Amino acid sequence: MKNMRTFINVEDIGPLEKALAEAQEIKNDRFKYQHLGKNKTLMMIFFNNSLRTRLSTQKAAMNLGMNVIVLDVNAGAWKLETERGVIMDGDKSEHLLEAIPVMGCYCDMIGVRSFAGLTDREYDYAETVLNQFIKYSGRPVFAMETATVHPLQAFADLITIEEYRGYVGTVARGRENSASAEGNLVPPYPRTSVPPRKLKVVLTWAPHCRALPQAVPNSFAQWMNAAPDVDLVITHPEGYELDPKFVGNAVVEYDQKKAFEGADFIYAKNWSNPGVTNPADYGKITSKDMSWTVDTEHMSWTNNGKFMHCLPVRRNLIVTDDVIESPNSLVIPEAANREISCSVVIKRMLEAL
Amino acid sequence: MKNMRTFINVEDIGPLEKALAEAQEIKNDRFKYQHLGKNKTLMMIFFNNSLRTRLSTQKAAMNLGMNVIVLDVNAGAWKLETERGVIMDGDKSEHLLEAIPVMGCYCDMIGVRSFAGLTDREYDYAETVLNQFIKYSGRPVFAMETATVHPLQAFADLITIEEYRGYVGTVARGRENSASAEGNLVPPYPRTSVPPRKLKVVLTWAPHCRALPQAVPNSFAQWMNAAPDVDLVITHPEGYELDPKFVGNAVVEYDQKKAFEGADFIYAKNWSNPGVTNPADYGKITSKDMSWTVDTEHMSWTNNGKFMHCLPVRRNLIVTDDVIESPNSLVIPEAANREISCSVVIKRMLEAL
Amino acid sequence: MKNMRTFINVEDIGPLEKALAEAQEIKNDRFKYQHLGKNKTLMMIFFNNSLRTRLSTQKAAMNLGMNVIVLDVNAGAWKLETERGVIMDGDKSEHLLEAIPVMGCYCDMIGVRSFAGLTDREYDYAETVLNQFIKYSGRPVFAMETATVHPLQAFADLITIEEYRGYVGTVARGRENSASAEGNLVPPYPRTSVPPRKLKVVLTWAPHCRALPQAVPNSFAQWMNAAPDVDLVITHPEGYELDPKFVGNAVVEYDQKKAFEGADFIYAKNWSNPGVTNPADYGKITSKDMSWTVDTEHMSWTNNGKFMHCLPVRRNLIVTDDVIESPNSLVIPEAANREISCSVVIKRMLEAL
Repeated sequence: MKNMRTFINVEDIGPLEKALAEAQEIKNDRFKYQHLGKNKTLMMIFFNNSLRTRLSTQKAAMNLGMNVIVLDVNAGAWKLETERGVIMDGDKSEHLLEAIPVMGCYCDMIGVRSFAGLTDREYDYAETVLNQFIKYSGRPVFAMETATVHPLQAFADLITIEEYRGYVGTVARGRENSASAEGNLVPPYPRTSVPPRKLKVVLTWAPHCRALPQAVPNSFAQWMNAAPDVDLVITHPEGYELDPKFVGNAVVEYDQKKAFEGADFIYAKNWSNPGVTNPADYGKITSKDMSWTVDTEHMSWTNNGKFMHCLPVRRNLIVTDDVIESPNSLVIPEAANREISCSVVIKRMLEAL
Repeated sequence: MKNMRTFINVEDIGPLEKALAEAQEIKNDRFKYQHLGKNKTLMMIFFNNSLRTRLSTQKAAMNLGMNVIVLDVNAGAWKLETERGVIMDGDKSEHLLEAIPVMGCYCDMIGVRSFAGLTDREYDYAETVLNQFIKYSGRPVFAMETATVHPLQAFADLITIEEYRGYVGTVARGRENSASAEGNLVPPYPRTSVPPRKLKVVLTWAPHCRALPQAVPNSFAQWMNAAPDVDLVITHPEGYELDPKFVGNAVVEYDQKKAFEGADFIYAKNWSNPGVTNPADYGKITSKDMSWTVDTEHMSWTNNGKFMHCLPVRRNLIVTDDVIESPNSLVIPEAANREISCSVVIKRMLEAL
Repeated sequence: MKNMRTFINVEDIGPLEKALAEAQEIKNDRFKYQHLGKNKTLMMIFFNNSLRTRLSTQKAAMNLGMNVIVLDVNAGAWKLETERGVIMDGDKSEHLLEAIPVMGCYCDMIGVRSFAGLTDREYDYAETVLNQFIKYSGRPVFAMETATVHPLQAFADLITIEEYRGYVGTVARGRENSASAEGNLVPPYPRTSVPPRKLKVVLTWAPHCRALPQAVPNSFAQWMNAAPDVDLVITHPEGYELDPKFVGNAVVEYDQKKAFEGADFIYAKNWSNPGVTNPADYGKITSKDMSWTVDTEHMSWTNNGKFMHCLPVRRNLIVTDDVIESPNSLVIPEAANREISCSVVIKRMLEAL
């Protein structure tokens, strides 16, 4: 993948073993490739809010010696016209055919955050905004969560699972409480005693009070399907089926307890109805079933499973306090690995410039 | 101009031939003067929104090795008192006599964006905010579009015209569509076969749905009047006369077709009524005449003229899709040159520190 | 203090003579310790607005070679849940037990701005937000004005007083008007002819139209009590008593004229009622007595006293135009020293990493 110009899907990163090895190399020396970014500029374009992505991406780019320009585009204040032939006398003051090439003029690489609107499935799943940047900016473009994917998160999740692969069935070493001051300081993890079997990883839906995009579960499924030695089970209420292109060969199990049995990793996430079964339900909340909240009883069904979530998380909707604060909660190391996954992606793109 | 402390008017940059040569030198090696900015800080102060200026100025300053601090002053939230003797118990929490010197404390150079209010011509044309920064900051100050001028844009326009001077009367080489991915990647342009005559450059008013400042046409006129081997014609509906100090010796032609005949470059821009003919009209929209929109018929009157606009542009009000997407549209290379014009200005100011 | 992990109170900086000597050393060569910050990242987290602190802290961190990430947390838009057991289905989308460790993941040092709410004295004086960052971020944390303290300001004030100690009873040399372009360019000040007596420093309350926190007077009192060769007098209307832990051994004098007599430095500031005498008054405005506004008559009672204020200042409420613009007004040099005080603090924290 010397020629990486986009980072959207798992294929873009090439062989995952190599990507994981690079992640560990960079985690051991975050500034090793700092020469690559000299006099290169990353432009981060946010159409939606961000905490983890904003911070970790800036950090990764700076680790690599880049300059960073952050552009917050308030979606309300700056609407881009996308059609030709329109007399632009309304609320859209610029056409994307000018705006995007201009942004490309002032940088060497672009990161884009643009959430799903959750009203028009076709528009969202066509990744319209992301593809406009790819087509018109003239620059390599990576997704910082877009309408249907969040690959930097999924890659960080994979790195985290690999780091804890050697501790399957045990309580995570040296972690008494994930929220302690030390919780975020996970040392480079020795990859020892990897079990000679596939990991059982479960992606579970959980209830939420607001309609959320499918980007995180989509990418998580895609990456787990591609991951070495992982069996993915997806569990959710009926009607919440993810898009088949992301589900791939994963097992879909509507009985959450069955899904959890023997699981090594539980990855909880809410998503709104993907509209696969019933297109009219797209983006809607069609279940608030609180029996899906991950609590200690749920975790007791697993193989001393590790708990994961991409954050931010609504406690006691998605997961109880006890579970997220338990030694087996990996939410903070997982967030910390966002810096690492992003570093690998930017490094690859810099090498391909 | 070793002693450049302000950048507002064309005189501030000194001989234009020298400035243009420096622009080409920097375009060939954007990082050549990086040592100049070491341990120097640019403060960019925005009283109004910005896309191109924000990005290109940051890029230019980083090219020159500077640190950059961006300060967004929401004009509504942070009002500065300007009068003495006022008991400040209203909505203004700080006096400019404190705020501006303090901002000067933490930087070596200041860029200011502050648009015209378009209600009080005298206040706007006195460049009150800009001059307060010049007087009280203790730092060199450049305009990032202020009430009546936008010199970084005009300088970028001049650089662009010089780059395409060798292609007068022809279709711009290697550019099939200005909005293509390659449209913004104009190579350093060889300045060959310059015609042995003056260029005919036309600044044309075009209709718009909102009242816009006169800063861009003012500066464009000022710079074209000063440019080597350029004849400037200004065309607009009667009543839209620009301030005489910017019009200078340019020809004003109310018949748009006559103005366009034989033109080498068409520079389209809307501006609100400058209030020169009728002071009561200042800042108002007194024409929305759509016959002024630049379309292919308009361009057919020219000498295969190149189309320019500072962006953002409202399509099919200012210019049709066909014209702005044509090979002769220079809007993207023009925007790209904002990085170059700004680099020259900052370099000069750094040399004068 | 090789081990500085927090910067909140005066004790955190260790012996003040040493800190002041370091301040002068850094003022003479702001980039001397630039190697310390290489590949280190400061995260500045703002729950409230900032001008001076935002700019001076960025400048200080860049002087020291650090990367800087600025995070504006709109207190309204991003509310953090702090309780356990709550079903988070309301307006709080993240729990501090996740948010804070995550922020710590992406940086090496944190600065926090979080003002007092002024409704719950106990909550404010417990420094709840600041202490959450200290407890859960895993990083060294310094206060960029928090609920009850503003130590970067107080340290800058002390540096300024030391710089002008040699000029007690005289008009400040070479300063005709603090708001002139040169007003902010105070050269490294020779510390000569220090009088062989203690300085009389007066902290005076002054009226204001809005309820302000006590952070600035609290820290100023704390630092002056600890300062070498300073006698602190605090003067304010009855009922405005500051918290005893900050007042310490300072003299409290309700007669403003008596307090000002023979003063070498007048430090004016408004604060809302601290609720010490009457808890129900906490955070309220219980006096708007305009006779406390510092004018030329007030200053005539002093020993040709220097005038100080942390800014922003409401003129003609806190202080008249004549006084703040007089040669003896130190408000601009004081603001300039914010860069210096912050540089010393960040340098110490970098050394302790």
